[in-house]
Amino acid sequence: MKNQQELAIQLIIDSWNSHIKRATKLFDSLSDEAIQNHIAPNRNSGTYLLGHLVAVHDGMLSLMNFGDKLHPELEQLFIRNPDGAALEKPSIAQLRSYWTEVNNVLNNKINEQTTDDWFKKHSAVSEEDFAKEPHRNKINILLTRTNHAAYHLGQLALLNK
Amino acid sequence: MKNQQELAIQLIIDSWNSHIKRATKLFDSLSDEAIQNHIAPNRNSGTYLLGHLVAVHDGMLSLMNFGDKLHPELEQLFIRNPDGAALEKPSIAQLRSYWTEVNNVLNNKINEQTTDDWFKKHSAVSEEDFAKEPHRNKINILLTRTNHAAYHLGQLALLNK
Repeated sequence: MKNQQELAIQLIIDSWNSHIKRATKLFDSLSDEAIQNHIAPNRNSGTYLLGHLVAVHDGMLSLMNFGDKLHPELEQLFIRNPDGAALEKPSIAQLRSYWTEVNNVLNNKINEQTTDDWFKKHSAVSEEDFAKEPHRNKINILLTRTNHAAYHLGQLALLNK
Repeated sequence: MKNQQELAIQLIIDSWNSHIKRATKLFDSLSDEAIQNHIAPNRNSGTYLLGHLVAVHDGMLSLMNFGDKLHPELEQLFIRNPDGAALEKPSIAQLRSYWTEVNNVLNNKINEQTTDDWFKKHSAVSEEDFAKEPHRNKINILLTRTNHAAYHLGQLALLNK
């Protein structure tokens, strides 16, 4: 029988896993041609949103003290710059493989955490600030990044014809 | 100093509040004319998504044992039937006012709950099943409905020109 804090953590992890699963299923269902379509006229392409999600999830590794980013170059391409910027980008096949890789590494690290680990500070907050703002912990990163994935999943679903 | 279960509950409530705030800000920024636009060609209108979110949030009242739905008629119009179904619907002004009303009632009830309350079963699961599946609790409803709001918020953002 899980205690309340274990149950709450498990809910948040389950919610993360369910969104990764849904996004993976969606990406897998889209051909390379279909994923290059834009979610709406003059809006992001599926390719950009795939790169954006990989970049944000890659950043979670360092934010949650799980290790270094695997593909730090993606931040410039898919977070700091908009879709359509004249930059050299990885191929769709590479982005698909990064998606699997980054989420697998995250998943392994997520499964290693104890309940106490989740309530430790993330890497972007100082010890001093964390003492005053204990909600700036690792489980909050997982929660907010799940919401972020849900937000873009709603957009990516528009690629399904 | 909050304990871990209180902190986890607070994170989930904060995440809910932040999405209600973002969605409200977005709806308020859209004129009645703009909200009738579709998020993409042949996709849902902003009006339908507003109605859909009100209907789902209204359903949370009964799911979380907070009371009866305020507008049970919305379920047929905005959950069971798609956009464009030939049904008589509330005006945009009415939907806007329902949005405020339903979220205010929810908010008041949310603020009344103790930590233990959040770990109690929601109304759509039996006592017997809940004994085996303790994650089917009220805080899980709040978490999954936040994700649901995030999903549609990603789509509604496309109405901003």
